[in-house]
This record gives sequence, C-alpha cells and structure tokens, in this order.
Amino acid sequence: MNLSQKSQRTVNAGAASVGKPPLPRPAPIGRRERRTAETRIRLFRSALQLIAERGLSMVTVGDITEAADVGKGTFFNYFASKDHVLGVMAEIQLGKVREAAAMADEGTRPIRDVMHRLVLRLAEEPGRSPSLARAFISSFLSSEEVRAVIRQHMQEGRRTIAKLVAAGQELGEIDGGLKKDKVAIQLLQAVMGTVLLWSLHERPGLESWIEDTFEHFWRSVAVSGNEQEP
Amino acid sequence: MNLSQKSQRTVNAGAASVGKPPLPRPAPIGRRERRTAETRIRLFRSALQLIAERGLSMVTVGDITEAADVGKGTFFNYFASKDHVLGVMAEIQLGKVREAAAMADEGTRPIRDVMHRLVLRLAEEPGRSPSLARAFISSFLSSEEVRAVIRQHMQEGRRTIAKLVAAGQELGEIDGGLKKDKVAIQLLQAVMGTVLLWSLHERPGLESWIEDTFEHFWRSVAVSGNEQEP
Repeated sequence: MNLSQKSQRTVNAGAASVGKPPLPRPAPIGRRERRTAETRIRLFRSALQLIAERGLSMVTVGDITEAADVGKGTFFNYFASKDHVLGVMAEIQLGKVREAAAMADEGTRPIRDVMHRLVLRLAEEPGRSPSLARAFISSFLSSEEVRAVIRQHMQEGRRTIAKLVAAGQELGEIDGGLKKDKVAIQLLQAVMGTVLLWSLHERPGLESWIEDTFEHFWRSVAVSGNEQEP
Repeated sequence: MNLSQKSQRTVNAGAASVGKPPLPRPAPIGRRERRTAETRIRLFRSALQLIAERGLSMVTVGDITEAADVGKGTFFNYFASKDHVLGVMAEIQLGKVREAAAMADEGTRPIRDVMHRLVLRLAEEPGRSPSLARAFISSFLSSEEVRAVIRQHMQEGRRTIAKLVAAGQELGEIDGGLKKDKVAIQLLQAVMGTVLLWSLHERPGLESWIEDTFEHFWRSVAVSGNEQEP
C-alpha cells in the first residue's frame, strides 16, 4: 500500500466516523451519505493542498471551492469557516489512534512498535509543510467552537492511547508504576510540541524530529533494560 | 521574594538584554535607554494583561496604549504590530534560561533542580491564563518576521540548555550517552507541547501539568537509579 492510498483510507475512515461510537472500522453507509462525505473530504483535501502551498491567510473559501470543483455556497453546507476545515484534522488523527488500538488488539506486534508507528502516522499530515503545520495549530487556537471539537476528539484519543499504555504494561514493556492517563498525555504533548517547534525551524523533515521524540518518550516509559529497539 | 517581584525582575532583565551578549545580569544603562526600556515594558505588560483577560483578537493597539498611559503613536516606536508585542516573550523566556545557566555555573545545586526550576519559570507567563498562552503560540505562528525573532532567541536558548545538559552529564546526573543538543530540543518541545495542550483543556493549572512533564522528561535523561527526586 503506498502513502497516498494510506492517506485516502484514513481520511475516509475519519470522516465516516463522526458522531459514531469509537469503532476501529466504520459501518457501511448509504449512497447519499457517501456522496456527502466525499464532497467534504474533497473540500478538505483541496484546502490542505492550498494552505500547504500558500499559508492559511492567503487562501480564500473561493480558492478552496474552485480547487475542489464545487459551488462556493456548497462550502458552507459542510464547514462554518476556513478554520473549521482544519478541524477535520482532529478526526483524521483520531482515526489513526483507533487504527493503533485495533493493531494492539490483534496482539501480534509489541506495543513499542504500535506506538512508534502511531507517532509517525500522526506526524504525516502536518509534516507535509511547515506552513500547513502552523495552520493546523492556529486553527486549534482560533475559536472556542473549533477548540470544543478538538477537545472532544482529543479526549477519546487520550483514552484510547491510555489503553495502549495499559496493554504495554500488561505485556511487561511499559513500567507498571506509571499512570496510563498521564503517559497518554505525555505522548500527545510530545507530538504537539514537536510539530510546533519543527514548524518554526522547518528543517530537516518532521519525520526525523518525531523519531527523536519517540526515542526520548520510550526511554521514559519503558521498563528498565527494555529501552532499546528489540 | 514574592511572585510579582520575581516577574518584574525577569521582565527588566529580558528587555535590557536585547542585542547584548548573553550575560546573566545586564550592564548598567543610561537614563534615556532606561526610560525607553521602561515604556516598552509598560506596553508589554499592559498588552499581556488585556490579552489574558479578553484574548488577542479582542484587544486593539488603542486599548494597549490607553492601559499603558502613553500616546497611541508611541506604540509603533516600539513594536511593528500587536503580534510583535508578544515577541517580547521570547526575550523574557531567554532571560530565564540565562538565569538557569548562571545558577548552574555557581555549582551549588544539582542540575536536576536547576532544570526543574527552569521549566516552572518558563511556564509562569503563559500559565497566567489559557487565553494568554494561546495568544503567545498564535504570535509564534503569525508572521515570518516574528518567527525569525523567536527562532533566533530559541537558538541561543537551545545552546544554553545544551550546556546545562553537558554539566549534568559531567556531574553524573544525566546519561552521558545522550546528545546534549537533542536533549535540549526535547526539553523545549516538552514545555511547548504542555503549554499548547493545557491551553486547550484549561484546567487544572499549568503548574501541575508542567510538573508531570518535568518528571517524564527527567526519567528519560537521568542515569539509571537517579530518576527519583534526591
């Protein structure tokens, strides 16, 4: 599976799961809902591309609808503002956390691998460009309405990551003396801090920054003698 | 020394040190420079207070100059825009890093204590209100000009923290196998990620979030058996 197929799958999973219970895979949906979801995703992807190229302040709703090939009024059926488009990011990131939980449930890979893969996946979209990463963070900060959406998704994300931590503790990979909820918060903070600092410095790529961050994170939580990659 | 006196001292140290070599204490300056620095700090403190109360977008330059009791035109002798006022934060934070370096040079306290105190001090200003913390982060992201100032201060901050790490390695507190520059980046990322996540959740106070963050950070870098508070 190549990168673009992977992203597409995640975007669809994220969009389809809005307002549904936290299943790793969404239930099948009807044609109309599918078309609605497709338009929403097309608008999101067009916005992402333009913001990555130009920065949030240089992109209008008209630019986004033109790139997505839909009428300008259509935009407001899906999103209250430009900032709200970036709120979709929270859904996409939550989709990746659910994927990680599903992978942990399979029980075929060490939790270290599952969490390592998760942080790399979380860095994928913001890592496309520093300008895009800054736009994501700005949208977090912009309005109480957007923040409420992000907070809600992030709470589910925290709970799901805490379950990964508990699984790692049961398997003897993660120090059993640590509180799983606090470890989950540390992981989220580490990813967000990395994206923020990288978006100021811009080089090298976010991937190499996030590798260092994961190594640092894992050293802190691993049971003694289990810090290194197996 | 109470909190307000401490903050005042830091603000003055930060402002006086602009463009000067990284001394822990600024050299004496003339009356005119002192008055200029005082006006600049008064504008900064007024802006901080208003932004903490209302949020950045609800504060005008006129509000700031009125609160600081100076003419509106005066503002632009000191700052290019509202966002640039928050650029002063980078100076203030750098002043705290220099203080930590001076404390480490004295050699009377463990490096763990010096770094612990540093992260608590770094969280002081953004911790005054979630709205203020969001304004700080927004100002980081706003313009290439502001980012350039912040990058420059942050580079000096990174180098200075890396020296703290090296001192901790020499004293046998920090794992000698770690790269000091990478550890410095992890500390900055951890603080920034904590401020960002806290500013979304808003409670409890930033101080308790930052305590957890420091504990997590120290576990990752301490030599084995030295993870706990002495």
